[in-house]
Amino acid sequence: MNIYDIAEMAGVSIATVSRVVNGSSKVSEKTKNKVLKVIEEAGYTPNVFAQGLGLNTMHTIGILVPTISDLYMSSAVSYLEEGLHNIGYDCILSCSGYHATEKDSHLQMLLSKRIDALILVGSTYAGSEDKSHNTDYIRRASEEIPVFLLNGIIEGENIYCTASNDYQATFDATRRLIEDGRRRILFMTDSRSYSANQKKKGYIDALAAMGEKVDPDMEIFIKNDVDYVRKSFGQYDDLRYNAVLATDDAMAIGVLKYLTDRSVAVPKDISIIGYNNSSLCVCTTPELTSIDNKVKLVATQTIERLEEVLHGEKMVAGKNVVACELIERGTTAFSDMDPRR
Amino acid sequence: MNIYDIAEMAGVSIATVSRVVNGSSKVSEKTKNKVLKVIEEAGYTPNVFAQGLGLNTMHTIGILVPTISDLYMSSAVSYLEEGLHNIGYDCILSCSGYHATEKDSHLQMLLSKRIDALILVGSTYAGSEDKSHNTDYIRRASEEIPVFLLNGIIEGENIYCTASNDYQATFDATRRLIEDGRRRILFMTDSRSYSANQKKKGYIDALAAMGEKVDPDMEIFIKNDVDYVRKSFGQYDDLRYNAVLATDDAMAIGVLKYLTDRSVAVPKDISIIGYNNSSLCVCTTPELTSIDNKVKLVATQTIERLEEVLHGEKMVAGKNVVACELIERGTTAFSDMDPRR
Repeated sequence: MNIYDIAEMAGVSIATVSRVVNGSSKVSEKTKNKVLKVIEEAGYTPNVFAQGLGLNTMHTIGILVPTISDLYMSSAVSYLEEGLHNIGYDCILSCSGYHATEKDSHLQMLLSKRIDALILVGSTYAGSEDKSHNTDYIRRASEEIPVFLLNGIIEGENIYCTASNDYQATFDATRRLIEDGRRRILFMTDSRSYSANQKKKGYIDALAAMGEKVDPDMEIFIKNDVDYVRKSFGQYDDLRYNAVLATDDAMAIGVLKYLTDRSVAVPKDISIIGYNNSSLCVCTTPELTSIDNKVKLVATQTIERLEEVLHGEKMVAGKNVVACELIERGTTAFSDMDPRR
Repeated sequence: MNIYDIAEMAGVSIATVSRVVNGSSKVSEKTKNKVLKVIEEAGYTPNVFAQGLGLNTMHTIGILVPTISDLYMSSAVSYLEEGLHNIGYDCILSCSGYHATEKDSHLQMLLSKRIDALILVGSTYAGSEDKSHNTDYIRRASEEIPVFLLNGIIEGENIYCTASNDYQATFDATRRLIEDGRRRILFMTDSRSYSANQKKKGYIDALAAMGEKVDPDMEIFIKNDVDYVRKSFGQYDDLRYNAVLATDDAMAIGVLKYLTDRSVAVPKDISIIGYNNSSLCVCTTPELTSIDNKVKLVATQTIERLEEVLHGEKMVAGKNVVACELIERGTTAFSDMDPRR
């Protein structure tokens, strides 16, 4: 009889058994009573095991990302790992991809480790408005341990979200383009995630607020790959766009390369704004204007909140929003700025 | 009395105790006897604990990287995580930075987990020729568990290295430039790691083999940052270089930006070759010729070898070398190729 058997018999993770044994407040009364009942019936002496296993002190956080090869994700994980290390926690990393069943199975793997909390990186975990992406698996996890979500907002007890304000960022960028005389603005995305939807909503609301027509043809769903966009973008010539707002820098650069190949003047004839303010932005000619979604700030605030929650702080808000910033470079030339590059 | 106590008393990690208990062949006779002696003296009944803890089946691999925000490192970790997941292993990630004491303490943290093997990503762990970087801490780790090193070669029992052939790559690239009439070749690096030294050696040997003068002034040590290189590169104008060979793409792009700012024709007047064939290469104008050091192949071959070692295969070679490939784009125009971009 050991902690794994108790966990199995109670239908919870060993982390939950650990928490019950150690009197953590992060377990619901219902779960706690279920586990204590199993422990009692089994004649289990938890403290000896728990202390022997060092369950109180594993100090390990599970991090789930769709992929680590993405520039945004690797930055986020880098800041998270550094922050966790500084407060004495190690991290177990798992890359789930973007499919629902894989996300769930990777999450279950992490829960089966002795993790103190779970961090989900990227809005893919927050589902989308069309309900096909279910987020119940996250709420189930949050019954066992606190769950932290980066760049997505979902509701639930023991779930703590920190997201950049993508809605406001695309709203402001779109308005800025319109004020600058660009009224044919293409919106490009590769995702229907929570954050992609926020970005699209900001774009549409800004068009409406400025009295511009909202044209669904101007919303383009395309692969986030420089070469792919560059080679296939000719199909949108008929749209006679004079500005492009992309939800990732790579897409925006694909358009810039396409236009440069055809000697179209950027930003004179067409303005381009990317997203994430990645290291790619300074590589292009002209350099790419991009929305900085403050990945470092989102990550460090997540760690601060995680520390508060794990220290038993009760007043940590479930939702925390960080403002983005438009970083102006050579692919835009707004009239109120001094174009340096 | 538990496995942690045994490990402490024997002066080894719990992973080693686990291995002794489970009869693994990956523990030296000396260590095995030491652990068994402690177990006997303590009256410890290992099997109950070991099986209860599932020590046989934690299936976890420790991955140590200096940083995950580097493009090469994040690619490598991405392929490693995917490969490990496919063969049923999870990974614990730790980012050590580049300082010796931090590397050692992060490595000790990983060893204190129940990891089955350790993967070190990047040649920074392989030390350098000037002996100031000691690699003994890796050999100590390899007494407990198999150690896999990506992009560095160090000797030792239970250590398995897979590296790209950086020496041959810079030798060939340098010769190619000289054959193309470029005899003033700047070599740029930001590191004195194992792989940086291999790259430099390839460059110097090619110059010598082609009867060119080796000029130490042409070897530049500089920060690997696009903006930094771009802003500071004027100091090298006096060197009258007509080609640049960089050990990372970001440096090469910094030079390209510097030259473009001054309307120097690339590749007509100056050829540029980067390293890593990262996603940055296709962003520039002209696009960057770069040496592909085959990070995917290095990672997948590491996982294949890890699987063999963990399955008890005895004939796995300690050293495995993968050939690089020069990917020609717009910053070179070798006479025997058809420049498409």
